[in-house]
Amino acid sequence: MKLDFVYISDIGKHLGHEVTLKGWLYNKRSSGKIHFLQIRDGSGVIQGVMVKNEVDAKTFELGDKVSQESSIIVKGMVKEDKRSPSGYELGVSDLRIVQLSQDYPITPKEHGPAFLMEHRHLWMRSSKQHAALRIRDTIEQAIHGYLHKEGFIHTPAPILTPTSCEGTTTLFETDYFGEPAFLSQSGQMYIEATAAAFGKVYTFTPAFRAEKSKTRRHLTELWMMDAEASYFEHAENMQCQEGMICAIMEKVLNECQNELKTLERDTAPLEKIKAPFPVISYKEAVELCNKAGVPIQYGEDFGAPHDTAIAGSFDQPVFVDRFPTAIKSFYMQPDPEDPTVVLGSDLYAPEGYGEIIGGSQRIHDLDLLLKKMEEHKVPYEPYKWYVDLRRYGSVPHSGFGIGIERTVSWICGLQHIREAIPFARMLEKIYP
Amino acid sequence: MKLDFVYISDIGKHLGHEVTLKGWLYNKRSSGKIHFLQIRDGSGVIQGVMVKNEVDAKTFELGDKVSQESSIIVKGMVKEDKRSPSGYELGVSDLRIVQLSQDYPITPKEHGPAFLMEHRHLWMRSSKQHAALRIRDTIEQAIHGYLHKEGFIHTPAPILTPTSCEGTTTLFETDYFGEPAFLSQSGQMYIEATAAAFGKVYTFTPAFRAEKSKTRRHLTELWMMDAEASYFEHAENMQCQEGMICAIMEKVLNECQNELKTLERDTAPLEKIKAPFPVISYKEAVELCNKAGVPIQYGEDFGAPHDTAIAGSFDQPVFVDRFPTAIKSFYMQPDPEDPTVVLGSDLYAPEGYGEIIGGSQRIHDLDLLLKKMEEHKVPYEPYKWYVDLRRYGSVPHSGFGIGIERTVSWICGLQHIREAIPFARMLEKIYP
Repeated sequence: MKLDFVYISDIGKHLGHEVTLKGWLYNKRSSGKIHFLQIRDGSGVIQGVMVKNEVDAKTFELGDKVSQESSIIVKGMVKEDKRSPSGYELGVSDLRIVQLSQDYPITPKEHGPAFLMEHRHLWMRSSKQHAALRIRDTIEQAIHGYLHKEGFIHTPAPILTPTSCEGTTTLFETDYFGEPAFLSQSGQMYIEATAAAFGKVYTFTPAFRAEKSKTRRHLTELWMMDAEASYFEHAENMQCQEGMICAIMEKVLNECQNELKTLERDTAPLEKIKAPFPVISYKEAVELCNKAGVPIQYGEDFGAPHDTAIAGSFDQPVFVDRFPTAIKSFYMQPDPEDPTVVLGSDLYAPEGYGEIIGGSQRIHDLDLLLKKMEEHKVPYEPYKWYVDLRRYGSVPHSGFGIGIERTVSWICGLQHIREAIPFARMLEKIYP
Repeated sequence: MKLDFVYISDIGKHLGHEVTLKGWLYNKRSSGKIHFLQIRDGSGVIQGVMVKNEVDAKTFELGDKVSQESSIIVKGMVKEDKRSPSGYELGVSDLRIVQLSQDYPITPKEHGPAFLMEHRHLWMRSSKQHAALRIRDTIEQAIHGYLHKEGFIHTPAPILTPTSCEGTTTLFETDYFGEPAFLSQSGQMYIEATAAAFGKVYTFTPAFRAEKSKTRRHLTELWMMDAEASYFEHAENMQCQEGMICAIMEKVLNECQNELKTLERDTAPLEKIKAPFPVISYKEAVELCNKAGVPIQYGEDFGAPHDTAIAGSFDQPVFVDRFPTAIKSFYMQPDPEDPTVVLGSDLYAPEGYGEIIGGSQRIHDLDLLLKKMEEHKVPYEPYKWYVDLRRYGSVPHSGFGIGIERTVSWICGLQHIREAIPFARMLEKIYP
């Protein structure tokens, strides 16, 4: 598109030329004779240098007056500057204030997280928040790109569903023209249907969990990417997860070095990530936890401290494989060699970040599925369509779901998941 | 990934070699001595030819027995076949039935739409449904691709919102830990915030409308792509929409010729699409409707018959520009030259498909926004964050939202929007 201004991300193309930038004042330092203006425009940050002798008096006065987060239009000459992160600086010849910001709430002093989250709409302009959400976009692109390269197509699962697959206590409910409907916790079952039509599919969709937990790893509204492939068994499923994580890592390391630097993220652990990832059994993971001083009985589900213990024991993402059938969803395929465990694994991110992916082979035998539904008290009528998939051309198939915000947290090295999404929804938190 | 089978979409790479396919029987013709098996695997369809003399008796019997939508594993030699759509056929040497389908509900005879929608989980295996949803995926990819190329980043807006911008009668409500919350109808206001942080942004998100209308153009759960750009005014906004539509068209015409053929879509009207698109004023559109025998008064909103009349009068997408301020949302920027109309346009797809995009420049002046909020009785407290965007570094900015299913309907030439999404949600329709 033809525009009458340029973006900071493109500034290198204009070296030695005068350009117009449209953005905001991120920060300012002034000596009596020079204003150093940190200009941001969303695509990047550049330093503008305004020298008293080189602009008219009125313009220099504007440089005095312009405040943090004022919107500004700046003209200037693009110069090389080896010391700056962008490699360039702007010799400012003209400054126009579009709107003068007064008393911008987020100042360089420390603010508490409650205050910052209350001002999330502004906080995301800050360099670290900005960097994390840019990396999020890159991660999303890597996922879409990897899956399409592998022949997956996007078939979005619905959010409004008449039933739930995991009990209704953690579901948001709504009135659907007189009938109860629930916000989906996972698109998985729906894409088992599209997988039988398209072979390899995924859904990149919000998911909802009305959990009253207040942790650093939970959102009530989160984004999941669920993928499903017909004729994939457990091994191919894990290979696909590995491939995707490696594709994410490669793209982020290639394209987001500035953002990682802004976040002060040590990239050494990320550069190490390489397939094949280690695989341990659930049983081994239980032993690991007990040895690490986080007690757990065989047959119990892992909690946050176990997650951290497992994830902290490897410098690669690690698959925890073959969970007990008793604690997993009804649709997971029991291991033919030991039906007390399922062909299902969770992938734990290193550095203590914990579970980011859950995946399994699904039951494709009609009778076994019906038996499991009965055992788990899953009603037949609302899931008739799901059973149909085992009636008409059933095939072995597998899939997995990755939590986007948990993946962003890990890769960005965030302390809290609320910074991994533009507008977090948590217990007691739905504004802005 | 290394697999022990190949996909039909890759079959050309294996010309002259024996391969294994894993898929389903789409259709069958048999003479006494030859079975012609239409094999689909989600990635494509190929004809398998099984000759009695060339396979053992048991295998040929399986060919007799195999039924529509049985899951099958087929071995055979890849041969060129100029008459087939794929250009290849398979000389079948072995057939294994994974699961025999019995009484598959969707037969080649005509079924009514209620029956087909009740079996949507199976119907999407049918060639036309399959083709439309593959084109949908390509359209989505074109949108993501165009926007990233133009420097937009994806910043997803939340679904759960404490308030609504367009009245609560058409909103789905849920209980958010004791407080009412609503499912978002549009991510636009949220990405006005991210646009001030990132410059150019978009959100590709489901939107919800609890409308009791039963038309061929309405879903209760639909997908929208909303884009927003700081420092874009009305003209740049329209240019961006044009560019995106052209990018979609180019990608679909390049990559989906087989799917368009399956849909019997006349591609001539699509090949004609070229920027710049015609622009008429709302006033001219009203005159056009009245001349076309679809009466409407100046100041009224267009209904479905007007949409069709406008959209049918051009062989290009047409912008209807400068709607009356009185019938548009409070946040739209009034035209400085005539404040009774706004700097807002809708884009109508040709061939009678009607509105697919709505866009506008947004009010960036704090006082004007506050005045408009008062006039429209928009409460201040829940929108304080939105007002903040005019308080701290406000800039002229514009954006637009495209309805994904309407765009798919147009490009695929669909009669009804329910076929443009895997699992449609409509009045009285939430299964499967």
